[in-house]
Amino acid sequence: MFERGRRLETMTWQEVRDAVGRGAGVVLPVGACEQHGPHMPLAVDAILPTELGLAVADELDLVVAPPITYGYRSRPLSGGGQGFPGTISLSGQTLVALVGDVLTELIRHGFRRLVLLSWHMENQCFVYEAAVLAHERAGAPDARIQVFESPFSELSDAAMDLLFNGDFPGWPAEHASIMETSVMLHLHPELVDMAKAVDDRSPRTPWWDVVPPPDDLVAPSGSLWKATQSSAEKGKVVWDEIVAAFRAAVMEELPGR
Amino acid sequence: MFERGRRLETMTWQEVRDAVGRGAGVVLPVGACEQHGPHMPLAVDAILPTELGLAVADELDLVVAPPITYGYRSRPLSGGGQGFPGTISLSGQTLVALVGDVLTELIRHGFRRLVLLSWHMENQCFVYEAAVLAHERAGAPDARIQVFESPFSELSDAAMDLLFNGDFPGWPAEHASIMETSVMLHLHPELVDMAKAVDDRSPRTPWWDVVPPPDDLVAPSGSLWKATQSSAEKGKVVWDEIVAAFRAAVMEELPGR
Amino acid sequence: MFERGRRLETMTWQEVRDAVGRGAGVVLPVGACEQHGPHMPLAVDAILPTELGLAVADELDLVVAPPITYGYRSRPLSGGGQGFPGTISLSGQTLVALVGDVLTELIRHGFRRLVLLSWHMENQCFVYEAAVLAHERAGAPDARIQVFESPFSELSDAAMDLLFNGDFPGWPAEHASIMETSVMLHLHPELVDMAKAVDDRSPRTPWWDVVPPPDDLVAPSGSLWKATQSSAEKGKVVWDEIVAAFRAAVMEELPGR
Amino acid sequence: MFERGRRLETMTWQEVRDAVGRGAGVVLPVGACEQHGPHMPLAVDAILPTELGLAVADELDLVVAPPITYGYRSRPLSGGGQGFPGTISLSGQTLVALVGDVLTELIRHGFRRLVLLSWHMENQCFVYEAAVLAHERAGAPDARIQVFESPFSELSDAAMDLLFNGDFPGWPAEHASIMETSVMLHLHPELVDMAKAVDDRSPRTPWWDVVPPPDDLVAPSGSLWKATQSSAEKGKVVWDEIVAAFRAAVMEELPGR
Amino acid sequence: MFERGRRLETMTWQEVRDAVGRGAGVVLPVGACEQHGPHMPLAVDAILPTELGLAVADELDLVVAPPITYGYRSRPLSGGGQGFPGTISLSGQTLVALVGDVLTELIRHGFRRLVLLSWHMENQCFVYEAAVLAHERAGAPDARIQVFESPFSELSDAAMDLLFNGDFPGWPAEHASIMETSVMLHLHPELVDMAKAVDDRSPRTPWWDVVPPPDDLVAPSGSLWKATQSSAEKGKVVWDEIVAAFRAAVMEELPGR
Amino acid sequence: MFERGRRLETMTWQEVRDAVGRGAGVVLPVGACEQHGPHMPLAVDAILPTELGLAVADELDLVVAPPITYGYRSRPLSGGGQGFPGTISLSGQTLVALVGDVLTELIRHGFRRLVLLSWHMENQCFVYEAAVLAHERAGAPDARIQVFESPFSELSDAAMDLLFNGDFPGWPAEHASIMETSVMLHLHPELVDMAKAVDDRSPRTPWWDVVPPPDDLVAPSGSLWKATQSSAEKGKVVWDEIVAAFRAAVMEELPGR
Repeated sequence: MFERGRRLETMTWQEVRDAVGRGAGVVLPVGACEQHGPHMPLAVDAILPTELGLAVADELDLVVAPPITYGYRSRPLSGGGQGFPGTISLSGQTLVALVGDVLTELIRHGFRRLVLLSWHMENQCFVYEAAVLAHERAGAPDARIQVFESPFSELSDAAMDLLFNGDFPGWPAEHASIMETSVMLHLHPELVDMAKAVDDRSPRTPWWDVVPPPDDLVAPSGSLWKATQSSAEKGKVVWDEIVAAFRAAVMEELPGR
Repeated sequence: MFERGRRLETMTWQEVRDAVGRGAGVVLPVGACEQHGPHMPLAVDAILPTELGLAVADELDLVVAPPITYGYRSRPLSGGGQGFPGTISLSGQTLVALVGDVLTELIRHGFRRLVLLSWHMENQCFVYEAAVLAHERAGAPDARIQVFESPFSELSDAAMDLLFNGDFPGWPAEHASIMETSVMLHLHPELVDMAKAVDDRSPRTPWWDVVPPPDDLVAPSGSLWKATQSSAEKGKVVWDEIVAAFRAAVMEELPGR
Repeated sequence: MFERGRRLETMTWQEVRDAVGRGAGVVLPVGACEQHGPHMPLAVDAILPTELGLAVADELDLVVAPPITYGYRSRPLSGGGQGFPGTISLSGQTLVALVGDVLTELIRHGFRRLVLLSWHMENQCFVYEAAVLAHERAGAPDARIQVFESPFSELSDAAMDLLFNGDFPGWPAEHASIMETSVMLHLHPELVDMAKAVDDRSPRTPWWDVVPPPDDLVAPSGSLWKATQSSAEKGKVVWDEIVAAFRAAVMEELPGR
Repeated sequence: MFERGRRLETMTWQEVRDAVGRGAGVVLPVGACEQHGPHMPLAVDAILPTELGLAVADELDLVVAPPITYGYRSRPLSGGGQGFPGTISLSGQTLVALVGDVLTELIRHGFRRLVLLSWHMENQCFVYEAAVLAHERAGAPDARIQVFESPFSELSDAAMDLLFNGDFPGWPAEHASIMETSVMLHLHPELVDMAKAVDDRSPRTPWWDVVPPPDDLVAPSGSLWKATQSSAEKGKVVWDEIVAAFRAAVMEELPGR
Repeated sequence: MFERGRRLETMTWQEVRDAVGRGAGVVLPVGACEQHGPHMPLAVDAILPTELGLAVADELDLVVAPPITYGYRSRPLSGGGQGFPGTISLSGQTLVALVGDVLTELIRHGFRRLVLLSWHMENQCFVYEAAVLAHERAGAPDARIQVFESPFSELSDAAMDLLFNGDFPGWPAEHASIMETSVMLHLHPELVDMAKAVDDRSPRTPWWDVVPPPDDLVAPSGSLWKATQSSAEKGKVVWDEIVAAFRAAVMEELPGR
Repeated sequence: MFERGRRLETMTWQEVRDAVGRGAGVVLPVGACEQHGPHMPLAVDAILPTELGLAVADELDLVVAPPITYGYRSRPLSGGGQGFPGTISLSGQTLVALVGDVLTELIRHGFRRLVLLSWHMENQCFVYEAAVLAHERAGAPDARIQVFESPFSELSDAAMDLLFNGDFPGWPAEHASIMETSVMLHLHPELVDMAKAVDDRSPRTPWWDVVPPPDDLVAPSGSLWKATQSSAEKGKVVWDEIVAAFRAAVMEELPGR
């Protein structure tokens, strides 16, 4: 059952027309279809930015466009790489074209406050390029696209302690691990099977990348860190911080008219 | 709340691995984000092929990949055209690249029974081209892609009478009209507001198309025919026929191993 | 020996300049190089739209641009598929680029009444996309492109009876069959060898398509229906109807200035 | 009226199959749709390489594929430039894609002796690139493509004297001038109107090019040299030399099996 | 005056042949043509990775290919953005194509140890995509491409203290600032004019990006931090660390044969 | 050690701004990374147009942009072909995109007198296409691009005699031969090893090209003619003529404001 509301896809064209007319903004979530360990589904990176957009949509008068559910190629050190069945990825050119076409259309329909929100780390740069190209093409100099290549910048020390207890592996490794799992337990426990969660990591985590990926860059389970330490309580704390930071960011950059 | 089940996006990578291992097939629904009159939401063309895939998934051992939610440009005589706010479309090249990348990845992961299922009429030809290119690229001669450029071929005389009562406008005009509205009332009544449904049509419906679209090719409401005559009962009859025809088609072409 | 006249390729640049100056329109025929059975040549789909354009050119003040002689990939159920030697096809992207460049140039030279006329069924959608892109690029809002994705919509009951005698296989199967062969016998009997004509059909004609094409979707001779029942007399009746319908269509949409 | 014969477009698929089977080669003429002065039609550059292919086709067992009738952008100093109505040109990328697709298909059908024959000077480099890309794609290492970026290299001193009488402007300027006009008078007098022929030249003929083209690089009539001195007699002498050189070239490079 | 040595561009083809033959690797430096404040030239990002490659070339038996001297679009918070005259950038697609073609050629010539080394932060992701595509295309599974999307990961605490004295602005802001200027003073003092160096910063440095860039994201001088605190001594310390880290990284990943 | 001066890459952004402000022009040298025999390095075709630009830069107030150091595929009869290790080439599409992006940026920054100068014969046509596309995109009708597809047109009889002594093989064969070697001996003797120079030629030099290249079109050494007859003295004479012709050409076409 679909909930109507701030999701553009459940609106009628007249509701979109009215939203544009009153100066509403639009969020385009960009995710991925990517393995998230033995305990979480492939859609995590598409679900979370959509939830983040919806969390602030009413307050900031935003509508949330249908998320981009396929993203750029998974990389071993931040998502496990392309070897896991179900990790279905786009080339850079396809992702740029897809996001660019959608942004161009949103501007054509009159949106001027656009938020491009990617959760999947590997989408960075490509979403930015899409925004640049769409803005050039759209011929609406007053349109502004706020580009989030990551959903947040940093968490409070308290949240970091709660999550990692001093043992923070760096954000790239936070894939299907404590933070993502906790947030999913908070938002969508029906999609997490903690009985299958494992702690894992890549045997080697260099600061460069390699093509083709050597085996020792890949965590065999697909969890790049300690998924078992996750909890809905941790998830709530972190999610509230993420939402607050995102709300503040959009209010600062695209305050509405 | 998400239901786990036959949707690939709610599966883990290990579940996908197992599905491939036992010879499961995969359905890729291709829809659109397109106006569907004052009474239905933009996602109708993405929702319906996804539902159609799910309706036969258990029986035919198929998983349903995340639907393509943006489709090719809406055309005046089959979808109202690009002028309605919220009709967010891709160029032909972008759609081909997107569908092609996803199919290539599905084949790379081992799927050999692939069903490409488009509901949105304007996607035809482009989804076929994507299938051809993906098959060439994937290097797996035994992979077979069944391409549905429309979700069904024809309905029984009884169903046609029930729906149109002798006044059938042709399938292109069946956009946001009796058939689609009835099926949505049957499957997702929460997304239909019959109080806003209207009967409408393009002032002129020639057998050619025109670029740029003249005003008199566009039905002002976005319903290309008689939406008010829709009902959940009609929807159930039609949907059951569509599901039966689709099931038979996949069984004939991709019977499994 | 070439006939001078309404063919743009046999005109001088000064004659084109004068045609533009007086408000003449232009037809761009789009065909294919595709097998047409054992009895007809590969150029049938390029010859017929060119002849159709020429048939109304004087009356409607149109010039006929050099036809696009290579078209989109042949499909098994409407053209026999890509397996026949001599069926030389373009990818979708190449066809869009080619038709788009030519349309853009015609608009740049000042033509404002443009008719894009495809005979080859598989070209549909791609020629429409080319028209959309060319119109966007050309920067001439008053240019209008009438897009014929099929050369006619329907024939009179009398003509249908004459042709098919109650046994109509559907237009896709009308490839290298009664209608096309009859029209060619009427227009270009020197290109038809009725001694080689056969009746044939695909062993299976589903309402979907398959990639790669199974053998049982392909009629071995390349004729998808009953070529032997063709005659120049039938051809004349049908051709006159097609010409009349096309003339009326262009007069309705692009009446001249 | 079409003549059947060595033109692939007038052959049936069975005749192509048989030609491939016996080791026949194929010529792909590449021309242009480009102004050729006030006295000659736009198709000169497409007609002449087609005639050249046909002239040697029987002897060398070649078939002649449908010519590419639109070529690369006309340049001021070798074709008058893009400013003349009727000069309808392709971008470099489109031409490469078009020629590349056709060559790939010809190789796929089994041709191994391929002749790519361009008459239009501006097509050079692009046809070569198309040949390289097609060969890479086609996966048939034994296929050989002979690339003629100009239809001949040089004429005999006698022919040069006959044509230019000591006043040779260089081949780029030989556009719609003595040589081309004479050859057309020899082959297709019905397409030449000598009453309209003029002598002309660009006011300035530097050894570089300029974008956008300055007016003084363009010969106002479109004839880049002395068209009035043309005759069918001169045409016959030159044509015979061109045919002989082309025949010898193909025999040397692609002698058949 | 050119120095011969490890630069591929100053080698003969026979020297390259011999290098491949003995198992040498190759470094492809990727830079940019981007403003570097009032005191440094546009080529800093191309010079430094070239120097880094040369610094370890003898020891690791690497040759250094001609650097890519134009990079991806400059972004306000890491390079000042596209507004500064002389910042000449490529689109993402062009950069991917360029780096991809060069890598493919290097693999074709037999190199199997490839180092892709980008100094310009904005090139990240695009160079990775180029490596993936080139590896797919090249058909040499044993070729390995080590991708450095930044020239180093972190410096020692001592170096950080020496450089920033506790006031580290983050690496993106280290553009034309203390680190880069110091390294240039160490390596190429002839290209630095400290009399023109200024301390500067963007008025606002959010953790997201914006298209088009607001003025307050751009440091007016083009130096994003404190250039005046630079010295050749600091440069030497830092450079030695960077070289050591790079040497170790290549030895770990591509130890040679 | 870099010399500051007319090279854009060694300028600061403020110096570029000032150059644009006073109406300076810009030269974009386009070269190649291509074998030049056993005695010369791969960069010859990139070095020479850069030197040519610098030779006239002061007098004509030009800045010289970073050269394009990778060019279009080497061809057997003008560069030895793609088989020599170290000949690293771009596809036509990549070269057009690269040169086009750079030109577009230069126009965006305000340059209006642009000189595109290619030394590598195989770059012709592609650099012209890049200029056309860049000019269309840049939206600055007053920008003018002078396109040199070869660095000079002809030499004086005296210079020809000095170089070739009556035995001129044609310019395509003048690759790594007398002229290029002599000029390099004059300008960069440190890059020429005359002890390794050889006289060589292709066994066969037809006036067409072949894909894939037959062995007998390739000179085994990579020198296409008599390199041993080169001298710095010859180089000086020729270089002075080339510089003078280039200077005159730019003064004629882009005289400055």
